[in-house]
Amino acid sequence: MAGNTIGSIFRVTTWGESHGEALGAVVDGCPPGINLDTKDIQEALDRRRPSGVVSSTTRKEADKVEILSGVFEGKTTGTPISLLIRNSGADPSAYHELKDIFRPGQGDFTYLQKYGLRDWRGGGRASGRETVARVAAGAVAQRIIAKAGIEVLAYTTAIGGIEINRDKITSYKDLRKVHANNLFCPDPQAATFMEVKLETARKEGDSLGGIVEIIVHGCPAGLGEPVFDKMDADLAKALMSIGSVKAVEIGDGINVAKMKGSQANDQMTKRGFKTNHAGGILAGITNGEEIFLRVYCKPIPSIAKQQQTLNTKGKEKTIEIKGRHDVCVIPRIVPVCEAMINIVLADHLLRQKAIANE
Amino acid sequence: MAGNTIGSIFRVTTWGESHGEALGAVVDGCPPGINLDTKDIQEALDRRRPSGVVSSTTRKEADKVEILSGVFEGKTTGTPISLLIRNSGADPSAYHELKDIFRPGQGDFTYLQKYGLRDWRGGGRASGRETVARVAAGAVAQRIIAKAGIEVLAYTTAIGGIEINRDKITSYKDLRKVHANNLFCPDPQAATFMEVKLETARKEGDSLGGIVEIIVHGCPAGLGEPVFDKMDADLAKALMSIGSVKAVEIGDGINVAKMKGSQANDQMTKRGFKTNHAGGILAGITNGEEIFLRVYCKPIPSIAKQQQTLNTKGKEKTIEIKGRHDVCVIPRIVPVCEAMINIVLADHLLRQKAIANE
Amino acid sequence: MAGNTIGSIFRVTTWGESHGEALGAVVDGCPPGINLDTKDIQEALDRRRPSGVVSSTTRKEADKVEILSGVFEGKTTGTPISLLIRNSGADPSAYHELKDIFRPGQGDFTYLQKYGLRDWRGGGRASGRETVARVAAGAVAQRIIAKAGIEVLAYTTAIGGIEINRDKITSYKDLRKVHANNLFCPDPQAATFMEVKLETARKEGDSLGGIVEIIVHGCPAGLGEPVFDKMDADLAKALMSIGSVKAVEIGDGINVAKMKGSQANDQMTKRGFKTNHAGGILAGITNGEEIFLRVYCKPIPSIAKQQQTLNTKGKEKTIEIKGRHDVCVIPRIVPVCEAMINIVLADHLLRQKAIANE
Amino acid sequence: MAGNTIGSIFRVTTWGESHGEALGAVVDGCPPGINLDTKDIQEALDRRRPSGVVSSTTRKEADKVEILSGVFEGKTTGTPISLLIRNSGADPSAYHELKDIFRPGQGDFTYLQKYGLRDWRGGGRASGRETVARVAAGAVAQRIIAKAGIEVLAYTTAIGGIEINRDKITSYKDLRKVHANNLFCPDPQAATFMEVKLETARKEGDSLGGIVEIIVHGCPAGLGEPVFDKMDADLAKALMSIGSVKAVEIGDGINVAKMKGSQANDQMTKRGFKTNHAGGILAGITNGEEIFLRVYCKPIPSIAKQQQTLNTKGKEKTIEIKGRHDVCVIPRIVPVCEAMINIVLADHLLRQKAIANE
Repeated sequence: MAGNTIGSIFRVTTWGESHGEALGAVVDGCPPGINLDTKDIQEALDRRRPSGVVSSTTRKEADKVEILSGVFEGKTTGTPISLLIRNSGADPSAYHELKDIFRPGQGDFTYLQKYGLRDWRGGGRASGRETVARVAAGAVAQRIIAKAGIEVLAYTTAIGGIEINRDKITSYKDLRKVHANNLFCPDPQAATFMEVKLETARKEGDSLGGIVEIIVHGCPAGLGEPVFDKMDADLAKALMSIGSVKAVEIGDGINVAKMKGSQANDQMTKRGFKTNHAGGILAGITNGEEIFLRVYCKPIPSIAKQQQTLNTKGKEKTIEIKGRHDVCVIPRIVPVCEAMINIVLADHLLRQKAIANE
Repeated sequence: MAGNTIGSIFRVTTWGESHGEALGAVVDGCPPGINLDTKDIQEALDRRRPSGVVSSTTRKEADKVEILSGVFEGKTTGTPISLLIRNSGADPSAYHELKDIFRPGQGDFTYLQKYGLRDWRGGGRASGRETVARVAAGAVAQRIIAKAGIEVLAYTTAIGGIEINRDKITSYKDLRKVHANNLFCPDPQAATFMEVKLETARKEGDSLGGIVEIIVHGCPAGLGEPVFDKMDADLAKALMSIGSVKAVEIGDGINVAKMKGSQANDQMTKRGFKTNHAGGILAGITNGEEIFLRVYCKPIPSIAKQQQTLNTKGKEKTIEIKGRHDVCVIPRIVPVCEAMINIVLADHLLRQKAIANE
Repeated sequence: MAGNTIGSIFRVTTWGESHGEALGAVVDGCPPGINLDTKDIQEALDRRRPSGVVSSTTRKEADKVEILSGVFEGKTTGTPISLLIRNSGADPSAYHELKDIFRPGQGDFTYLQKYGLRDWRGGGRASGRETVARVAAGAVAQRIIAKAGIEVLAYTTAIGGIEINRDKITSYKDLRKVHANNLFCPDPQAATFMEVKLETARKEGDSLGGIVEIIVHGCPAGLGEPVFDKMDADLAKALMSIGSVKAVEIGDGINVAKMKGSQANDQMTKRGFKTNHAGGILAGITNGEEIFLRVYCKPIPSIAKQQQTLNTKGKEKTIEIKGRHDVCVIPRIVPVCEAMINIVLADHLLRQKAIANE
Repeated sequence: MAGNTIGSIFRVTTWGESHGEALGAVVDGCPPGINLDTKDIQEALDRRRPSGVVSSTTRKEADKVEILSGVFEGKTTGTPISLLIRNSGADPSAYHELKDIFRPGQGDFTYLQKYGLRDWRGGGRASGRETVARVAAGAVAQRIIAKAGIEVLAYTTAIGGIEINRDKITSYKDLRKVHANNLFCPDPQAATFMEVKLETARKEGDSLGGIVEIIVHGCPAGLGEPVFDKMDADLAKALMSIGSVKAVEIGDGINVAKMKGSQANDQMTKRGFKTNHAGGILAGITNGEEIFLRVYCKPIPSIAKQQQTLNTKGKEKTIEIKGRHDVCVIPRIVPVCEAMINIVLADHLLRQKAIANE
């Protein structure tokens, strides 16, 4: 089966190409009676829109969402919710000269290999623009998990090698402030350095990678479906399905490989777990602690610097990708990460509800 | 839905508890006409069995597999293949004293939270023994991908902080030799140090973590189903669903976060891709290069050292897990990683076959 | 999971309410490279639109379809195809007075029981209008099966107890003419009688049921996935999911219960099967003969005659459903039946392609 | 995907061939804490075993079930339940002479067309013996729906054209007695005539078809998932997936085609629905009334009478199927129908629980 659906009870199917008519999502399996307003979704979409130094895309998209079904008198009805975002600023003409050439680091080559033809307009379905539908659907999921007291928060911890100073973030409350920030970075000083670095990269015609962390607060114990649909497995898949993510960590992540059992185990006392090396998940099931995830994002592949490549006839070409592109997938990816986590958690909440031993 | 099935066309459903009657897998969607013998599966299972310094489990399991259906006259028939492995060495009595206590780092607490009751015999379904069914099913998958020229190879690159010397591995051929080695480690000298480190940890009553790498050789371009079932997303899920894995990297992995676009992009010439930073996957679809994956495994949680914990009544307890347990999930996890990759690749091969533009 | 998706490789997800903004379908898993034009889909939708004596709905719907994604330069790209049909003639005000009352034979009562709230505007998602999305998606499926030489033809064989004279239909060619007819009835004389009967029922403020037959021509042997997704099982489900269908027969159908084995078996000679009692399916797999299906449709429940019912507060009420409604679900259901069969066959074609022994 | 799994939350995967090592089912998604004993399943299997005049199979099968996983201390644990039934009486030698010939009315031809090879031992997976796994899984499902107060009862209403006298069955209590009867027929006098008819058919070397009805008692309103997984659609699929079923009716079934709306609608009063023409399902959702279903079964295809057929080389042959076979699929199919309904209802109960508006 084609892979445009995620979730098993709460199911999201997305569709749409970067320069097609529109993008959208169908959310099936949303419980009835949930308050849902266009505004809820619009706010999430607005957070995803480019702004500040990082963004230099000339494309202007209003990203106005329409709810076409599944909501009546402000509440979900239990029927599928269709969300539509028209592409108002699509202008494929800029891509015409690139239609026969494989842009390095993009899906041009692999889409052609897979499908035998491809929509070359701005990357088609392989464009980061696809994530607009994820964010819209994630906003629906957010309403479900919020009812259960769960909050998902993503933030930037590194761009181009500049990392935040963790001593400055002493509480979850500190983290909540990140949305005030253009880079969604909890350390304002680091953010300033990041902006300089981004500006330099842009001038060089290059791009930067970065790191995003996600905390899930208030998640009850008991979510996750061993042995394959473990919570960590489903979260990893959801995050890895985002275009630029090349690594996913949970809890202490890569560091566990160097730890001893006596260091990595989270011991328990009457006050709960003494530590949270596990990142809130044990044996694939949430343990009631905060869930910690970290994703490593590659630099945006579209760069002005000259690169070697092939065209569709196998001829060697050089390419300099003109036009103005984002320099870094961060911060736009931050709300996308949140959306994916929202979706996975909403699904697992319902999955657990279905089989809960009462 | 419960999460004991993986795959969409090639579908594997596993079942069984550590100290129950048996474990097994049902493989549905295997194409007909594939040569399949008990021996093929047995060899994979034998590779997973404990041996050498790392293992000190006293449990002796023959892990003899029976093919109960779906194979006729040495060939698959297209009907479901049922694989059965009896638990010959199960002895739950050793676990009786632990039945009301939460072992730190294990699923005892979360299984009870989720299901309201739990099979406490040796971890029940949360035991690493569950992976025996994965390896059996993976051996079936291996027959499918081998027909397509694909080979999956996993090996140990670090245990307890000791890493291999990459200068010593100059070719894929070198890697193939790893199976001769007890630790599946391509650097024999590092393996010697690892064994010493493992022996020390055992004496301390502690355990160690480690790193496993997986290379997929010969994979054709065009596999993977954007936007959610991208190849990297499905591989990450499959690996993260293995008990001790806490991080998954693809290609340059965590390092991409520090790279510039001009460094991370794989440029092309007539001889193909000049580099393979992407690890063989672009936009979620294989590009014909080798697929590189890396997983970081936490130390085995069952340790002899004293730990603080709670019992099921919420009373504080100390625990020292007696008996002899493995000191490190490596090397047993190596064939499990291979099995999971085999399964994902077999599934995606068939998915691509279904929609291929001819 | 909610049930708005059908198919496993070729997957159709529909959404939309009778008097909401729009209705639509997302078709995922359509192979790339299929010629697809808005016109193809529009023709199918036009065939479903009410016309002639049977229809008296005052609602005027243009049913104009938009293809929003998944098609590029006239060909499918392998990405999801989003189809949108705006509700231009929606006028929920007529339903306002019915919002608290359960219309007999409709889903008003059960939707409220299930979801705790309901979109009362014209039946919401339970309306027959929902089938517009099925027909649109079915037109995509039709392009796939047509490439494989398969043709699906549905036609009316009875309305209100008036049956066609089968002696008049001596060939498949005769059947093909049914689309020229307002009632899709292959016996023009019977059609005349049916129209009289329909007119009488309308005058009485009542409605009529009927029977539709479906023939699948040119279907290759080998489609169907035992033991649960047998071809007959999937076809039965697809047809029974249409609102008014209360019985489904395959081949000799209900008559087989009275037959002996020597009568019901289809013997074979070099020229093929001597008979087709089985209706083209043996052991759940197509045998290369024509597939015969028959569905029995109940009369439309909305009638002008007075009926007893309850309101949402449990108070007894009488109801006379004013406004003009269709008198019979036939012929509008005829293209819906074709659409559902198209979808099932397209899915099974791809499923067989995935595992075919080459 | 191959079709050996049914259900979306409560999922049953069956496997096994008629003359293979064993048959079985994996039940995933069963809620934890359900009392389950081998005895519960064994009773259901015993009811399916041949007995009385209808059966003349010489094969003796104990059909002893083993629960291999998912149950601990008499309760389900929430992990997959693996059920195993060894084939103790398999003797494929009798089929050796039939291995290259297509038995009329059987799946021999279509399995070969589909898979390119086939297990010819007693029909392989296409054998009615496959249903042993359905019955075992259905017994697990029965425990779930019984907790919700739902009871499923199937019984014979016709064999070889002899129908029961409905005047004799005046209450649901009368129906409950059917299990005392060899033919599961609620009219003992009709049963006597049926037995004579069966005996005659056997002597002629022929076989008979029949009709089975199913009543679901105590089903709550609100189950079923429009628009594709409607309760009637899923029930129809489940029943049509049983080998010999060629037609499925719900409620008034085929008769609705001749009714007027004023006759077919079930009006409501304070005491509930005045009639039950709908058979307990409105708009695909249960309405709290009894669910009525009826299936029409073809005669068993294996008959002693001479028939024309082909062998695998396309040569014309005559065939007389020796050995002793059942004369009629009834009554063995009766518990199979119950099992399939149990499974669908258990699944929909959990599906509704997942999204219920609280």
